[in-house]
Amino acid sequence: MLELLDLQHVGEGVYTGAPAPDGNERTRMFGGQLIAQALAAASFTTPDDLLCHSLHAYFVRPAQAGRTTDFEVANMRDGRSSALRKVMAVQRDELMCELTASFSREPSLESKDFQVSMSELVPPDQLFREAQTSPNLQADDLRKRPLGAYGPLQLMPAQPRPAAPSMSTWIRVNGSLPSDPRLHACALSYASDLGAVHASMTAIGVQLFDPQWQVASLDHAVWFHRPFRADEWLLFTFDCTNVSAERGLNHGLVYTQNGALVASITQEALLRPREVLVP
Amino acid sequence: MLELLDLQHVGEGVYTGAPAPDGNERTRMFGGQLIAQALAAASFTTPDDLLCHSLHAYFVRPAQAGRTTDFEVANMRDGRSSALRKVMAVQRDELMCELTASFSREPSLESKDFQVSMSELVPPDQLFREAQTSPNLQADDLRKRPLGAYGPLQLMPAQPRPAAPSMSTWIRVNGSLPSDPRLHACALSYASDLGAVHASMTAIGVQLFDPQWQVASLDHAVWFHRPFRADEWLLFTFDCTNVSAERGLNHGLVYTQNGALVASITQEALLRPREVLVP
Repeated sequence: MLELLDLQHVGEGVYTGAPAPDGNERTRMFGGQLIAQALAAASFTTPDDLLCHSLHAYFVRPAQAGRTTDFEVANMRDGRSSALRKVMAVQRDELMCELTASFSREPSLESKDFQVSMSELVPPDQLFREAQTSPNLQADDLRKRPLGAYGPLQLMPAQPRPAAPSMSTWIRVNGSLPSDPRLHACALSYASDLGAVHASMTAIGVQLFDPQWQVASLDHAVWFHRPFRADEWLLFTFDCTNVSAERGLNHGLVYTQNGALVASITQEALLRPREVLVP
Repeated sequence: MLELLDLQHVGEGVYTGAPAPDGNERTRMFGGQLIAQALAAASFTTPDDLLCHSLHAYFVRPAQAGRTTDFEVANMRDGRSSALRKVMAVQRDELMCELTASFSREPSLESKDFQVSMSELVPPDQLFREAQTSPNLQADDLRKRPLGAYGPLQLMPAQPRPAAPSMSTWIRVNGSLPSDPRLHACALSYASDLGAVHASMTAIGVQLFDPQWQVASLDHAVWFHRPFRADEWLLFTFDCTNVSAERGLNHGLVYTQNGALVASITQEALLRPREVLVP
């Protein structure tokens, strides 16, 4: 793993990453390697005390596992306690993957904390011992890989989804829209920024519009699943899986009245108690 | 809503969006408006029959609601049946929001379908009638806004989270890593691309490594919540909320052995039956 993350600095904001350990011309680069090396490149350009709190990436073309990759870092913003970087992963002048990563200084004061709980599972050491003695696996092979894993070849059974604080709202566009589905996608995107943060506020017991709390959206993602009209009622239901370090993560599901899931949303929000001025 | 989405074409790949309906110098632009107008700009540059299937955005600086915004569209890829666009939302030469959107032609053949189901809820028309007769709201005001909503002022009670097919794997880096938390974030990112797609495959009853199925990651996002070491065992647990149009959406939670939630992951994957050649 350390060899993969030890990028070479080859120019201003450009870093070269090693090929996959056993990669060749005919194998496709593991997506996790592109993401990890892109994040390493971005981390080289930010102050040591800023840590990544989120990243978003698109896999643009299949990269060759046997080749080195160039990571070109662009500076999108430098703030007092935060930074935003864009990274282009390039092989032979073609874009393979693009990644945006956001960095921040962790708050020094104790902040509100919430998370969904973990399911009860067999502990990893017991599973790993069993995996190592399996006739299908060579212990030497396991140690040479960047990761040790119980799985993905030996998957564990499905677990129930943890409960999470949630909020639901019916929303539609006022008036009617022409039938072009692109307009409806834009209108749903407009609505998708309503309500997400309320799930996080519920999770830590903060009231809506409490003037003591500074609230702002940090990032936003939408996935479209099925046809819909944004001028008919849609149910937006958000749940919160985590609040920590003054950030809350919220996941949304958007349904038609007939129960068809038409879109999913993820949004991280800043939730910060305003500084109280002591007279 | 139509007025907001009716951008003006002011240059090659540059579109100007109207201010918020009641925006002024002192009010902050609603994030949903930036996202919706950015997606509209991207849609103007792609073929009519390609639809957006996902978008990822960062809110970089607070935009002024009373100003117009310029949306600069860059072409990241044009494929036979897909396109990728990057949009920069700019006010007064400063970046307010950046968005990447991926477009694809919907498959014409019937594809496998799965979704998490909707909870039972009071229907929207009944709720909306009640909201309109509330003394706190003016019906005229409601009609003038881009959206009609039951909420967010009148939120509905929390609902249980829908069940979803899930897969869990314990993973750690082979060997040990120095203590620099940035290395551990990169290593977790590497591991985060393992296993997500398996949740989607489980949802539609496809076996791992089935040669009849073409599988590839499309996008990827990670949020970091709490300190962790990637050279100690971490539980990666993924569930799938949707499979449609040959794409599956998977959400991951990453826990330490002590049950601390240290990261969340979202990944959309392509799941396509390979074409069978009939002799």
